[in-house]
Amino acid sequence: MRLGLDIGGTKTDAVAVDAAGVVVDRIRLVTGFGPDAVIRTALEGIDRIAAAVGLTPSDVETIGIGIPGQVDVGTGSVSHAVNLGFDELEVGGLLARALGREVKVENDVKAAALGAYHLMTAGVPEGAPRSMAYLNLGTGLAAGLVIDGALWRGARGAAGEIGHIPVDPGGVLCPCGQRGCLETVASGSAIARQWATDDPIPARSLLAAAEAGDEGARAIRSLLVDNVAAAVRVLVLTVDVETVMIGGGLSNLGAWLLDEVKRVLASWAGESPFLASLELDTRVQLVPAGFPAAAVGAALVGAPATRPSGAPAGEKRVATWQK
Amino acid sequence: MRLGLDIGGTKTDAVAVDAAGVVVDRIRLVTGFGPDAVIRTALEGIDRIAAAVGLTPSDVETIGIGIPGQVDVGTGSVSHAVNLGFDELEVGGLLARALGREVKVENDVKAAALGAYHLMTAGVPEGAPRSMAYLNLGTGLAAGLVIDGALWRGARGAAGEIGHIPVDPGGVLCPCGQRGCLETVASGSAIARQWATDDPIPARSLLAAAEAGDEGARAIRSLLVDNVAAAVRVLVLTVDVETVMIGGGLSNLGAWLLDEVKRVLASWAGESPFLASLELDTRVQLVPAGFPAAAVGAALVGAPATRPSGAPAGEKRVATWQK
Repeated sequence: MRLGLDIGGTKTDAVAVDAAGVVVDRIRLVTGFGPDAVIRTALEGIDRIAAAVGLTPSDVETIGIGIPGQVDVGTGSVSHAVNLGFDELEVGGLLARALGREVKVENDVKAAALGAYHLMTAGVPEGAPRSMAYLNLGTGLAAGLVIDGALWRGARGAAGEIGHIPVDPGGVLCPCGQRGCLETVASGSAIARQWATDDPIPARSLLAAAEAGDEGARAIRSLLVDNVAAAVRVLVLTVDVETVMIGGGLSNLGAWLLDEVKRVLASWAGESPFLASLELDTRVQLVPAGFPAAAVGAALVGAPATRPSGAPAGEKRVATWQK
Repeated sequence: MRLGLDIGGTKTDAVAVDAAGVVVDRIRLVTGFGPDAVIRTALEGIDRIAAAVGLTPSDVETIGIGIPGQVDVGTGSVSHAVNLGFDELEVGGLLARALGREVKVENDVKAAALGAYHLMTAGVPEGAPRSMAYLNLGTGLAAGLVIDGALWRGARGAAGEIGHIPVDPGGVLCPCGQRGCLETVASGSAIARQWATDDPIPARSLLAAAEAGDEGARAIRSLLVDNVAAAVRVLVLTVDVETVMIGGGLSNLGAWLLDEVKRVLASWAGESPFLASLELDTRVQLVPAGFPAAAVGAALVGAPATRPSGAPAGEKRVATWQK
């Protein structure tokens, strides 16, 4: 059994994944704020998900943590986790000392890429795609890459930071210091900046206004969809991943978002035989609503299960999750 | 011994690479135009480079061809090789039948990526970078990727097609059908379109005019340098390759081009702490003038030598080439 946690700014998901790759149990906790509270949340999550499957943390094969920020996967040190209330924390080391065993730590978007890839390839060990990008549309925009069947972190852990590729010299200034970054037009923060609302889910309010005919809302909505499509184009033209799976908070817009992004990609293909040859519109998917991709990926960090080609002949994995 | 050919629109380079990875001989031929002439050129190149090292084509370990166009590396079939005068040709099959042995075929930019990576990592089997992008600035703009020590072609052979990532919604129409592609501002064709001249090397004329104070030339030159830097940024933010090696016809602009691109990257870092943390300006290099990267890469296609980590302990490779 492998345990995985996805420590988010407000909630923490914990899952238990069995040897066949099936998510056999899942719980959710409120994340504490600040270094001590985050570590307490993680320990409680690990204890509770282990207990849920009748085990203790010592009994399980691996324990992995997905967490926002910059992660040193060698040491388990995490930096720049602003939403969690710390700038630098030895997450892996503190948890390992508390539990008396190894705990792996991975950036949450990269963990989600592993989890989404597991979902996409589970049950198809033969002929499974060897590449995938997980495109996270949350407060920011970033991707995780699976290349040749394995997570590719990049030479310095920065692979997938496409949110800070500028796409418009006339665009607005991005907090990163550049102008016209993808993230300034295709992310939760992009909507929040452009669409003032009391709705706790600004995207929902934006779409409702656009549906009702508000021209400003329609322009912001177009910019969003066009640039999610642009992010897909960047990923395929650069890495040529077989599939781009969209996840993160904005993916809760669901089928509407997917349909719109496909519509834009198809319209570009109509103008460009080159793009048409890449069939971008057929290569985009949504992570199924409710699938805890980052927690599942965290459970699988370092597991051979993340490389289907390395699976013993005849071994099957099943794509399921519960709750 | 391994033989590699780089079949270009006007000339064909042929090299012989020994078991230690050293380029031991090199010849150059004029490339014939049209399918029959291209095959004749290839056969002549193979015969002559084999003879130069005292062998016949049957004696050598591998023979590889780097060629422009879309290559099916499984069958050796090449399509859309407009500059060579054919739309579809069974290059691998025809050469294999003529020689009675296997001949591998690879896209020339991807072959050059392998060759450049070999040059970069030869002699440093311990601690060699595991990733690199070869950025080809020729008539067009495209990249070849080495990820985790091996050439990454992409799910459908399109990895590195960053020349058709749009970077300016207000840019000119690209022959690909999109607007404002990187290739429309940072390539040989971009210069030819913007700078009318009788000079057979328009870039040289452009730079001379810019040096002499021509404002139009300076604007085109700025656009070129800024967007070569933008191509480097796309490659590092998406794939996080350790190094970007610039090659292709425009790389003959040499140290000037490299210095300017580094200057732009450093100036961006001055405005963006995020970009500064990536140290882009320290991660760009030029392929040394005269190094036949695509021919060397073609010789190494499929060779274990392309994965330094797989080299037997103690084996050394030396980065040298001869004229």
